[in-house]
Amino acid sequence: MDVVHQLEIEPRMSVNVLVERMSQCGFGARRLAQATAIYEKMLSGDFTKFLTISGAMVPAGMRDIISHLIRKGHVDVLVITGANLVHDIIESFGCHCMGTAESDDAALRAEGKSRIYDVFLRDEDFVGFEELMQRIMPEMEKTLSGRELMSILGSQINDERSILRSAYDMSVPVFCPALPDSMIGLQAWMFSQTHRFNVDAFADIKEIVDICYGCERSGIVIIGGGAPKNFALQSMLVTPNSFDLAIQLTTDTPENGGLSGATLSEAVSWGKISEHAKFVTVYGDATITLPMMVAATMERLELTGKKLPAKLPG
Amino acid sequence: MDVVHQLEIEPRMSVNVLVERMSQCGFGARRLAQATAIYEKMLSGDFTKFLTISGAMVPAGMRDIISHLIRKGHVDVLVITGANLVHDIIESFGCHCMGTAESDDAALRAEGKSRIYDVFLRDEDFVGFEELMQRIMPEMEKTLSGRELMSILGSQINDERSILRSAYDMSVPVFCPALPDSMIGLQAWMFSQTHRFNVDAFADIKEIVDICYGCERSGIVIIGGGAPKNFALQSMLVTPNSFDLAIQLTTDTPENGGLSGATLSEAVSWGKISEHAKFVTVYGDATITLPMMVAATMERLELTGKKLPAKLPG
Amino acid sequence: MDVVHQLEIEPRMSVNVLVERMSQCGFGARRLAQATAIYEKMLSGDFTKFLTISGAMVPAGMRDIISHLIRKGHVDVLVITGANLVHDIIESFGCHCMGTAESDDAALRAEGKSRIYDVFLRDEDFVGFEELMQRIMPEMEKTLSGRELMSILGSQINDERSILRSAYDMSVPVFCPALPDSMIGLQAWMFSQTHRFNVDAFADIKEIVDICYGCERSGIVIIGGGAPKNFALQSMLVTPNSFDLAIQLTTDTPENGGLSGATLSEAVSWGKISEHAKFVTVYGDATITLPMMVAATMERLELTGKKLPAKLPG
Amino acid sequence: MDVVHQLEIEPRMSVNVLVERMSQCGFGARRLAQATAIYEKMLSGDFTKFLTISGAMVPAGMRDIISHLIRKGHVDVLVITGANLVHDIIESFGCHCMGTAESDDAALRAEGKSRIYDVFLRDEDFVGFEELMQRIMPEMEKTLSGRELMSILGSQINDERSILRSAYDMSVPVFCPALPDSMIGLQAWMFSQTHRFNVDAFADIKEIVDICYGCERSGIVIIGGGAPKNFALQSMLVTPNSFDLAIQLTTDTPENGGLSGATLSEAVSWGKISEHAKFVTVYGDATITLPMMVAATMERLELTGKKLPAKLPG
Repeated sequence: MDVVHQLEIEPRMSVNVLVERMSQCGFGARRLAQATAIYEKMLSGDFTKFLTISGAMVPAGMRDIISHLIRKGHVDVLVITGANLVHDIIESFGCHCMGTAESDDAALRAEGKSRIYDVFLRDEDFVGFEELMQRIMPEMEKTLSGRELMSILGSQINDERSILRSAYDMSVPVFCPALPDSMIGLQAWMFSQTHRFNVDAFADIKEIVDICYGCERSGIVIIGGGAPKNFALQSMLVTPNSFDLAIQLTTDTPENGGLSGATLSEAVSWGKISEHAKFVTVYGDATITLPMMVAATMERLELTGKKLPAKLPG
Repeated sequence: MDVVHQLEIEPRMSVNVLVERMSQCGFGARRLAQATAIYEKMLSGDFTKFLTISGAMVPAGMRDIISHLIRKGHVDVLVITGANLVHDIIESFGCHCMGTAESDDAALRAEGKSRIYDVFLRDEDFVGFEELMQRIMPEMEKTLSGRELMSILGSQINDERSILRSAYDMSVPVFCPALPDSMIGLQAWMFSQTHRFNVDAFADIKEIVDICYGCERSGIVIIGGGAPKNFALQSMLVTPNSFDLAIQLTTDTPENGGLSGATLSEAVSWGKISEHAKFVTVYGDATITLPMMVAATMERLELTGKKLPAKLPG
Repeated sequence: MDVVHQLEIEPRMSVNVLVERMSQCGFGARRLAQATAIYEKMLSGDFTKFLTISGAMVPAGMRDIISHLIRKGHVDVLVITGANLVHDIIESFGCHCMGTAESDDAALRAEGKSRIYDVFLRDEDFVGFEELMQRIMPEMEKTLSGRELMSILGSQINDERSILRSAYDMSVPVFCPALPDSMIGLQAWMFSQTHRFNVDAFADIKEIVDICYGCERSGIVIIGGGAPKNFALQSMLVTPNSFDLAIQLTTDTPENGGLSGATLSEAVSWGKISEHAKFVTVYGDATITLPMMVAATMERLELTGKKLPAKLPG
Repeated sequence: MDVVHQLEIEPRMSVNVLVERMSQCGFGARRLAQATAIYEKMLSGDFTKFLTISGAMVPAGMRDIISHLIRKGHVDVLVITGANLVHDIIESFGCHCMGTAESDDAALRAEGKSRIYDVFLRDEDFVGFEELMQRIMPEMEKTLSGRELMSILGSQINDERSILRSAYDMSVPVFCPALPDSMIGLQAWMFSQTHRFNVDAFADIKEIVDICYGCERSGIVIIGGGAPKNFALQSMLVTPNSFDLAIQLTTDTPENGGLSGATLSEAVSWGKISEHAKFVTVYGDATITLPMMVAATMERLELTGKKLPAKLPG
């Protein structure tokens, strides 16, 4: 049996060296190392790469990591909550503020601030978002899919670091399975009151299922569960394929029975993930584990000098 | 200051007596008692009553509680995940099986069983579901809203205990903000390949926002977070109103910053919940806390002999 | 395969009926029902019954349940944190107050209040505790075991509902493996500065290991992990015996690798729990799950009219 | 208001650079950055530095970090569970093995392996531990304190990387408030059956309280709660002093009311932590957050070239 190696740390050690050493530890450290090893494999090989994002990742500062991954060709399919896209757009012309979780929420309300744990948004940032949305919403004769709408929005955002813009530039399809459940939904609905504009609720399904059918080999990174996790997994479910590599970064645990915390092993029973797949769940706050996994993987790709595969058609 | 009363228990004590006594305890016990007190108030007064459901409540056996609440007039608006509705339909002509969380998932796969923590579904139950869905899906010229589709489906299910049927019978609108993210979505998409059938992604927003505008006083019970929680809260957000009573039953905690575990106090900063509202979060598995809260409240309503208010227009 | 039965609830249903029906649900509900079935078996048969308690159960109002179990002969060995015993003594002549978790802790400090989540203790309650302790501490020539000290303290507390007094009256040994880690420890140390008084740190081990050696069949209820959980399990470990029945009520989950959240299955690998044992962990707040399990079991014992076994020698 | 800066990552970035940038993020990332800033302050100034450790840190590979901190003079008082010390001794002459959390525990039992989540220990490693313990236990006329026993054990372990040996070499007192609750306790008790050997349960209290009295300024790092957390905090409680800096790395959250997950703010109400203190809790697996915090702090100390303060008398 392999032996646990006590972790050694040094000043100036790189994130990658730390994560590499964690592979011989136990508990969360080992799981993070396993996730990174799987991610390196996923980005180095011919896998169609899914990324699903739930939880307030953009307000917490994870936006650039996501758009960076997209621009580097490391994302072929993005499934994301509408809320993260709202915050992506807000960042393009405004900002999120550092707040505190121990706040008087009624006082915040009076000051025109909305709280996301320890991050604040000011009312004026929403006003800007709303104006932008009303300006960039497309008037269309034909019925759009949600994915098409996301692509049009992305084309109108002049910000290299925007997730939507990066996806547009890289032709990465963006799926938002709970589109009505966001302020984008609210703005779209307001716009549709006075303009010709219609989105087909189910059109995205065809697109993502077609991608799943076309995957010879595929991998998925799941951040935080929710509708994005399920939407990606169920799309694979209806095809003869299944995910070969899977990583889950989440604070949910399996014991409550909900899908967000369900093990990736459970997904094997459904045929969503291959029984021969490599997969691991890292339990913990993704604002810590995602940057570590990505920074370590970036370093490995650079070190191996591996030529990245040509981007697969999304 | 009030004093903590040590909890006394007896054989044959009713759930209500237990919960009543918990009101003078600390921690989760007190929170459960507070939730029940708020729920009694909500069901006894002229409140528009929202219920949002996320997490695999139907597979875990909570379906009858939900349909019972609907049939008793205790739900004016239901916001729910598609997955729970899929399982609702499966229950109407099939079943869920008792399984175990410690399973060999590859073996389950080979046996045609899909696992939801410690509950199993057999492949044949899905086949039945799919046949039913293809039979009851409506062919329509006009574009439906998601709520209209749910209502049509409910009308076709001959099962008094079905959530969808109960909602149909009681004219309770059912909103499913992540409709594509479910097997109902998959079936709807398959149907639309060969039939005239179209659902407008944003039509539900108008309906639920109109309800929110019309609420003089309102209360909400949130089970498990997710898109249903956010969809209900954001709909109230865009109106001048806010929730006066709010209960959250969840295993998520606030520290990871996600909306599912966000405190109801945080919702005050957004104006989703009134700063004068009464609200409480009970942390824990809703398969335990929901039955307790409902059983205790049912007993109180019976005891007070309070005539229930006429059902508000949904 | 057995079928999940959707849970039905009624006004005036007893806790036992609710828990009984939960046995055919999933998730936490089923686990609670399993725990109750195991507890019924434990209390109905010839098992040496261990109870371990960690977490602020007494401040939260669970003291009477514990002393009730002791007085009914349902506890043969009690392993508990010092803090719970401190609060037990405080309850005997003072009280805990209803507070709130959202407090200004610096203001509380200025008011002479100490907070335990949503429970407050006033400085004067500690003063009373300290006076009592200095009065009832025994002056001894010989070196005591911790268990002997607990017994002497119990004999001096004139309160039927006290855990320590109940244990004294019923000759139930009370072990406190982290005795220095409590205000009892602080008081004992202060007393020992001016009196002949000495406690042997390891003497308890012999006593509890002897009990474990003598157990033909044994069961354990573990509330909240911590040192009490480990102390009871390790004592069984060094004997040829192992626990035949085991219940764990805890909010800790296994993923962080700590002993508090470790599965009971893990304890099988150590030989602490028999591989043929029946065991279950109920994840959730014990201020909710403990009263339910105990109330339901009390009703069952009354219903079956089973004559309780003569108390085993502690 | 300060603005959230979207986190940028690069290949070969050091852990410190990553943590530094996290200070302008939200959620767990920011908390980790705050903890590191507090730790830098603690190690750079004249603070008496307490470190408390609970949870299976040594089996998970965190032993070298702890002994490194001790040898560098960054620990003045160590409060730790007996289990971690048992594993420290086992590492000195044996090892822990890489296992898996998804194990057949009965099979492991048959193979002579004990499981700690995903780490295994072989029976022979325990045998070696027991032999060593029986050899190095001191025969004494006088009654020892627990701290003295730990010091004697440390002097007998010829392993620079041992926590006990490092503490002995650096004259750092090691307190183990639940000493009986460990295999060290079991070995000590066995030894005392045949040798003159006695440990005073309460003697440690005087020593640690004296240290607390002597602290002009003090800081504490709490890993994982449990008895070590409480023992350190209560020792400060009985003095006029309180901690000025405090860091907590834990997976426990406050909602269950237990001390392990209690906020550091709650400790302010008790006077354990100063109301003017800087403190933060990082929620998450300490096998990830501890190495990051320590690696980042080590780099900062090196960068600033700050001369470390002479070690305070423990």
